[in-house]
Amino acid sequence: MSADAQGRIVETEFHVRYAETDAMGVVHHATYLVYFEEGRSEYMRAIGSNYADIEASGFQLPVTEAEVRFVRGRRYGDRVKIRTWIAENRSRRVTFAYEVIAPESGELLVSGQTRHIWTDLEGKVVRVPEAWQVLFTDS
Amino acid sequence: MSADAQGRIVETEFHVRYAETDAMGVVHHATYLVYFEEGRSEYMRAIGSNYADIEASGFQLPVTEAEVRFVRGRRYGDRVKIRTWIAENRSRRVTFAYEVIAPESGELLVSGQTRHIWTDLEGKVVRVPEAWQVLFTDS
Amino acid sequence: MSADAQGRIVETEFHVRYAETDAMGVVHHATYLVYFEEGRSEYMRAIGSNYADIEASGFQLPVTEAEVRFVRGRRYGDRVKIRTWIAENRSRRVTFAYEVIAPESGELLVSGQTRHIWTDLEGKVVRVPEAWQVLFTDS
Amino acid sequence: MSADAQGRIVETEFHVRYAETDAMGVVHHATYLVYFEEGRSEYMRAIGSNYADIEASGFQLPVTEAEVRFVRGRRYGDRVKIRTWIAENRSRRVTFAYEVIAPESGELLVSGQTRHIWTDLEGKVVRVPEAWQVLFTDS
Repeated sequence: MSADAQGRIVETEFHVRYAETDAMGVVHHATYLVYFEEGRSEYMRAIGSNYADIEASGFQLPVTEAEVRFVRGRRYGDRVKIRTWIAENRSRRVTFAYEVIAPESGELLVSGQTRHIWTDLEGKVVRVPEAWQVLFTDS
Repeated sequence: MSADAQGRIVETEFHVRYAETDAMGVVHHATYLVYFEEGRSEYMRAIGSNYADIEASGFQLPVTEAEVRFVRGRRYGDRVKIRTWIAENRSRRVTFAYEVIAPESGELLVSGQTRHIWTDLEGKVVRVPEAWQVLFTDS
Repeated sequence: MSADAQGRIVETEFHVRYAETDAMGVVHHATYLVYFEEGRSEYMRAIGSNYADIEASGFQLPVTEAEVRFVRGRRYGDRVKIRTWIAENRSRRVTFAYEVIAPESGELLVSGQTRHIWTDLEGKVVRVPEAWQVLFTDS
Repeated sequence: MSADAQGRIVETEFHVRYAETDAMGVVHHATYLVYFEEGRSEYMRAIGSNYADIEASGFQLPVTEAEVRFVRGRRYGDRVKIRTWIAENRSRRVTFAYEVIAPESGELLVSGQTRHIWTDLEGKVVRVPEAWQVLFTDS
């Protein structure tokens, strides 16, 4: 499902940290998975939840696949805006999609998605708890 | 010089990221040097400057010493407030001091300081440019 | 081209670091892009080169796409073996493929690939220098 | 107690990773706490133990203080040798000391130490288990 069809898109914005840059002078590519995770965290806060609650209730949502496309780099001190939405929401898995945007120009810097499965704390795949699935669906 | 004597203390606040935690369930101790760096970045923005400007003008301010005292851990999703001030400002070096605070309780989590020297882009020690020293002094 | 067809597969092996784990107790998923990068570095050393040489000769090989599939987690102190090969080698781009293996059992933990383009130091796309392309082809 | 007095010094050596560099072109200063941790891990393996065993037996050894002195930077692909020894071994705490060396020249790059306390898994300070203290003392 596209972002337009989905409805809710959650945005969060912050500065690039010096530690996140590498010797090319730009944000190291692995850092964008951390930015995506921040987008996901903000998404959960926006729907009145948070990932810590999920773990506290006995569930985990580990990443099973990730795809990232890198269009343009970003430097220390630049700001990045992360746009996050749910691309797919099933009983045992959920897919988040992301865009990293230069807030001053709207330019797309990086895009990608992460697929997750619902597991218990031992890592066994489970159906998503009703409460969480409705929450994501309603969003 | 103590924070009280100094005057300016700059604060910034953000969420703990999941990637910053470790298998003990709390923020990995090396991450606090990154938090201190964020405090420093915010300090520079607060005095109308930023570290990217310093590098663009041909200077660097590498860390020569760091000390960190860990009082209490922090978990994913918790917020941290970083308080940053200049403890010493000399012609060739500057010392920043930091406190990481639990914003909801005011409890001290971590404290420390980093000492820096002024160098040119080749790493040769130089006297701080007049403009930067005054900026830090006035702050 | 598959690993079998390709011929050269370069392996490197090391311990999981504590800082690489997260609050789930396993290696944080973003770390695998760093492991892939280590695989790439070892691949270049194995063909008698290294990425620092590439940058020193005026070229860069930034990542344009990355895909990662996570099968099973790994804990602090466990060893990981990274198997790296070239899946595609063209005049302006190259694709590396990776498997992260549990060395004690041979079990596949994570797999993925990264696509790269050849650029000059300003980031402009260029044809791969003859010397590098032959090197990769011969491998 | 100095390294000379102590006796056992454990060394481990590895390459600088690209992700560990920053926009100054050298290893980011926070990374050295991760290198120290690798030195500690290798120290424990050298005495026939490992930190995972400590946690599995119900104890933790969190860092309470860290000091780092940065003498000279290191670049991507360079090798670093970490020398680790126990500077102090008491019933409730232990101090590790470290030197990061350029293996090709023997030059000191970074030095430091970390202080740790023994706790149970809930973080309560405890006396070091007899088995562990003897192990460290004998080393």
